[in-house]
Amino acid sequence: MAFSPVQGRKETTFNRVVDERTRNLQRPSSDLVSANQVDPKADLARERTSATFPSRELAALMQGGEEELKLRERIADAVRTEPVFSKKGKYFMERSELYRTTLEKYLALPRLVRKMGEKSPIAVGRIIRELIDEPGGLDLHLGMFIPTIQGQGDAEQRKYWLPKCARLQCVGTYAQTELGHGTYIRGLETTATYDAEKEEFIIHSPTLTSTKWWPGGMGKTATHAIVMARLLTKGKDHGPHAFVVQIRRNEDHQAMPGVVVGDMGPKMGYNAVDNGFLRFDHVRISRRAMLMKHSIVESDGSYQPPPVAKASYGTMVFVRSDIVMNAALYMKKAVTIATRYNLVRRQSNPGSKNSGQGTSTPELELQVIDYQHSQRTLFPILAKAFAFHCTSDFMRRMYFKYEKLSRATGDFSSLPELHATSSGLKAYCSWATKDAIELCRLSCGGQGFMAVSGFGSTFGNYAPNATYEGDNNVLCLQTARYLLKVARAAAELAACRRGISGAESSEVAPTHATSGSARYLLEGSGGVELGSRLGRAVGLRHIGELLRAYAHASRRQVLELARRAGTSKPDHAISVDMVAWIKAAKAHCEYVVLLNFADSVSDVKSRVSASTAVVLDRLVALHALATMEDRMADFIEDGYLAAEQAAAVRAEVLSLLTELRPDAAALVDSFALDDYFLNSALGAHDGDVYQRLFDEVQDAPFNASHVPPGYAELLHARLVKGAVRSKL
Amino acid sequence: MAFSPVQGRKETTFNRVVDERTRNLQRPSSDLVSANQVDPKADLARERTSATFPSRELAALMQGGEEELKLRERIADAVRTEPVFSKKGKYFMERSELYRTTLEKYLALPRLVRKMGEKSPIAVGRIIRELIDEPGGLDLHLGMFIPTIQGQGDAEQRKYWLPKCARLQCVGTYAQTELGHGTYIRGLETTATYDAEKEEFIIHSPTLTSTKWWPGGMGKTATHAIVMARLLTKGKDHGPHAFVVQIRRNEDHQAMPGVVVGDMGPKMGYNAVDNGFLRFDHVRISRRAMLMKHSIVESDGSYQPPPVAKASYGTMVFVRSDIVMNAALYMKKAVTIATRYNLVRRQSNPGSKNSGQGTSTPELELQVIDYQHSQRTLFPILAKAFAFHCTSDFMRRMYFKYEKLSRATGDFSSLPELHATSSGLKAYCSWATKDAIELCRLSCGGQGFMAVSGFGSTFGNYAPNATYEGDNNVLCLQTARYLLKVARAAAELAACRRGISGAESSEVAPTHATSGSARYLLEGSGGVELGSRLGRAVGLRHIGELLRAYAHASRRQVLELARRAGTSKPDHAISVDMVAWIKAAKAHCEYVVLLNFADSVSDVKSRVSASTAVVLDRLVALHALATMEDRMADFIEDGYLAAEQAAAVRAEVLSLLTELRPDAAALVDSFALDDYFLNSALGAHDGDVYQRLFDEVQDAPFNASHVPPGYAELLHARLVKGAVRSKL
Repeated sequence: MAFSPVQGRKETTFNRVVDERTRNLQRPSSDLVSANQVDPKADLARERTSATFPSRELAALMQGGEEELKLRERIADAVRTEPVFSKKGKYFMERSELYRTTLEKYLALPRLVRKMGEKSPIAVGRIIRELIDEPGGLDLHLGMFIPTIQGQGDAEQRKYWLPKCARLQCVGTYAQTELGHGTYIRGLETTATYDAEKEEFIIHSPTLTSTKWWPGGMGKTATHAIVMARLLTKGKDHGPHAFVVQIRRNEDHQAMPGVVVGDMGPKMGYNAVDNGFLRFDHVRISRRAMLMKHSIVESDGSYQPPPVAKASYGTMVFVRSDIVMNAALYMKKAVTIATRYNLVRRQSNPGSKNSGQGTSTPELELQVIDYQHSQRTLFPILAKAFAFHCTSDFMRRMYFKYEKLSRATGDFSSLPELHATSSGLKAYCSWATKDAIELCRLSCGGQGFMAVSGFGSTFGNYAPNATYEGDNNVLCLQTARYLLKVARAAAELAACRRGISGAESSEVAPTHATSGSARYLLEGSGGVELGSRLGRAVGLRHIGELLRAYAHASRRQVLELARRAGTSKPDHAISVDMVAWIKAAKAHCEYVVLLNFADSVSDVKSRVSASTAVVLDRLVALHALATMEDRMADFIEDGYLAAEQAAAVRAEVLSLLTELRPDAAALVDSFALDDYFLNSALGAHDGDVYQRLFDEVQDAPFNASHVPPGYAELLHARLVKGAVRSKL
Repeated sequence: MAFSPVQGRKETTFNRVVDERTRNLQRPSSDLVSANQVDPKADLARERTSATFPSRELAALMQGGEEELKLRERIADAVRTEPVFSKKGKYFMERSELYRTTLEKYLALPRLVRKMGEKSPIAVGRIIRELIDEPGGLDLHLGMFIPTIQGQGDAEQRKYWLPKCARLQCVGTYAQTELGHGTYIRGLETTATYDAEKEEFIIHSPTLTSTKWWPGGMGKTATHAIVMARLLTKGKDHGPHAFVVQIRRNEDHQAMPGVVVGDMGPKMGYNAVDNGFLRFDHVRISRRAMLMKHSIVESDGSYQPPPVAKASYGTMVFVRSDIVMNAALYMKKAVTIATRYNLVRRQSNPGSKNSGQGTSTPELELQVIDYQHSQRTLFPILAKAFAFHCTSDFMRRMYFKYEKLSRATGDFSSLPELHATSSGLKAYCSWATKDAIELCRLSCGGQGFMAVSGFGSTFGNYAPNATYEGDNNVLCLQTARYLLKVARAAAELAACRRGISGAESSEVAPTHATSGSARYLLEGSGGVELGSRLGRAVGLRHIGELLRAYAHASRRQVLELARRAGTSKPDHAISVDMVAWIKAAKAHCEYVVLLNFADSVSDVKSRVSASTAVVLDRLVALHALATMEDRMADFIEDGYLAAEQAAAVRAEVLSLLTELRPDAAALVDSFALDDYFLNSALGAHDGDVYQRLFDEVQDAPFNASHVPPGYAELLHARLVKGAVRSKL
């Protein structure tokens, strides 16, 4: 049916009109008056041909090889074709539907994994969950309940619980945080009082603030919870321990006697997860409900403390490396969507011939990406996504090295550094990613605000990363404590070298300070620091000199703060200079990220084509120089960089943007993010943004009726009175 | 009923249990083991008594007097007691309910205004809308449709439309933006072709990208729209003009023939507004549907252009001053919630005696506000809220002065500056506010993520301010263009003074450059700039010297960029240095904001008590110094501030935080934001955060059932198999 003239056409219902029109919108109208016809698909296709390097090669490299990349593509294809995994209409769902469809996807996952029959089902499952890209009611069951039983349950407990978990005969969650208590574990109020006579623990929530608060899946899904409660036995408080407590009956999902449990209501994001609250009124559980791999309560109530108190820190390190990997993933997601849209979106034309008040038909507008500001926003984020990718690889390697060593030799000596570095990197990377998602959204103008762009849910679902698994500021302070220790060890070492004895013994062995990621703190502490050779003796992209600058900027802050701290206790020293220590911890993390990025690129360069190597070098340089520009004060305050060097850095950043411009499309292609994962009307691979935006909003729930909610009682009567036809 | 023991209690339904428990949670349990009982209400009450100044005095000052403050309180009381205005359960509403209840409030507004019988009903209505704090389906009718008819309709058109608008016999919206065209008005594709024979315009959407996109209220509510379309008559394109077009029938709300209209679906926020899309298929409207106050199309199709092309810019200035006022309001809202919660929230205790691995019961934790980092986050935002408040006052005054002058004498000469300054301030203030809301949320930890905290909706509803009424980056470039012109005029003036002739004539009269907010650009351009005397010859809080530093930092950037631009055309000059120009425009705005804040405080100091004056001075100093610290590179790069001055600035910021600490509660009280407006479980006046959080989530929709959505088909069968009671 043609785009029919008004006069002859019968009115149909609203929806039919919309449907008809949608089908016809692609037909060019014969009375086209405007010259600025756009073809976003052609624009994006052209952008791909302009690339200077093979994006497929880089994609394979990022995924760990062509085989791995192909596996991911097979999985994405399989997921896309299973109806239960469809994301259609997801952005229009009310919360209950989002919850239900997400749960459905998780439940369908094992079947799909089996059906695919790949070699490594666990990896396939992980990739499918990544593609689903929506945390759900089973996340804590899979991510915390099962691992905690594996890690802290004794053999009998593991044998009892793990099969039930696998068959979903119980759904678990992990209840630590309380209404009044977050980061400070020792402040938890929930109690587990041992009754030796009955050989039971009595779990109790003595105050309002002791209400368990936030556990995912607890709102409505879970039947069981690992509850962190203060263990009280024989009149003594042994601090928080883990207990498995049934909170809902298997038969009918009613709350267990003495248990008050419910949902916390909607949040800024994460709404497919039913975060919940939980209170206990003297709930009795058996003695063996306490997870007893590390600590034990005997029948008579006597307590055996865990042999190595810090053993469980390793898990935290692993979880944090996961968060950094996720940071890389969501940075890639946001910048892929934004870059593709900025490549096809056209807006204004400052170089236009009729830029005054004009009446002629408009010319073709400029691709938004060709505004310097768009490049300056997006390309450093793009580079940072690569940098975080490499950083998470590094953290993984560091963790596995520690794991192996500590398991084989009982050597936990690298744990302080591992803990400190992973804390800071978790904070640094999750902040940067949260900010990057928002910057990417803003770079898409109004369209980024639409649900179908995907930015709102990406931001909302990502935002908690800055808070959970340790509030970011608190984590930076953990890093700061370590930096202070290393700085003190360095001072001791220096004193020792100078033959000064009697220096206070530091908490970190001086020898340890000379290895690890903070060893650069020692390097410049002996003598006078020379100014940077950047842009003088060496080029602005000289990676050794860039690293030297980052190390210097961090070291200067740390050593100055350590000096100010004198010999005061670390807690006090940090609390009076907290803002500066958080800044110093970030500076340290920035150094570590750059170091890992540069090292990784240096490692792979011999294995890739020359053109790819060139692009990777540009990304490292852009990451280093743009980040430097963003916090220039740290580099110039003490004269390490001079004013003309700062100006040269800014100019070099602009050069790099221009050099990377032809590769913008190819670089986001190299992240190899499937359209199913992206789920964005702005970011799809084909660039067909306008058609997709228009088509998708047709299904918006409000369009199911031609009148708004409440029309009959609120608007109809008044509007009918206006029905006299306009005389104007 | 007492908190009964488990054994004897019968199981009740989930909801009853919750209800019973909620009622009993305040009763202290007899077996309380924890020492860290908190009383947030007492904490906040104590904080108020520690204030060094009378917050009521400052509140009255901010509202323009005690009478005005009392009027606001009367209005808040009235709104709070009318059931239709209730916000109960608002954060749990699905979109359709949010839309409907918001519409209901707007419709009930005139009745309440009449009932109150205050002297100035328009002001009362405005305040009620502010208190409702939710844009709705009628916002564009009130804020754009009516004003546009008032401003651009001729006498007959106004007489015809305005009474209908007032009686809501039509609901209007304003349709300018198109799917493919935003900021660049000349790129609009919708056409209005005049047919002289029938004396009608034919409104048409020739392409997909010409689809009208984003108008608020268009999705489902509006019956009419002001449509911006290219006027084509006698074969000539006269560019965009405004037409009133009926889009839905009054009788039954069906789309008019040839019209395709619908809702754009959910967004990151702003979801009580039905933003919509609109397409025309050769829709005929009468000649008189074009708004003809300024431009006219005669019956024969001949066109009369508007007499003064820039007359409508004044409205934009007014709208932008409104956005700055809103920036102040939402900054106040966010920082009130966050400060109150940070005052009562207790978390950890780094100075605690048992900060090692300990087993004793925990001590009372520290108020979060007593962490330096919390103060460094919140207090500068608090100061900035005052600064923006003063800035919006300044913009109002500037606008009214221009209005009066241009009306009386036809003098539009101050418009370029007014336009440039208001553009930049809109961008600067809306960015800062958006960021501040997010920082305030983060300062509340996990709780800030809950819907009932109010942060999610505040952020989501506020975020579009950075994009609508001009994308912020584009607006900064408008300011940059003006700054370039003034810089060129300054150079010309300097050349003139030096007796050099033949300088290119600049676009801004040199005389004009010497007045206006950018006149400081001329001041330092003649000679060598001396370093700052801050912390040397004068104290760090010396406002004259602080302003000199801000002026210097802005001037240095602008003059350097103007120098780089040489004699190239402004568009080109700005496009090759876009990032730097945006930064320079922000620096200019920061100077203007500080100038206005300092001037306002200086004006009112004689009228307030000495203690209030002291606090106001601290706020100005904190705003100036903290903002300086945040962009220190701009002040130290050229040596204007030396390294030890930068360090002194940081130290002074910390001193100011400590000095302001006792007044934190009183300062947010002085914003006089009613609990009804705040609508936050974390930010209420009484500080009773934990009880409120717990109580409010009981009504979360998921808690209406004891099972999750999809339980029967997805979970029940599996879980029942796990019903064999635990042997552990």
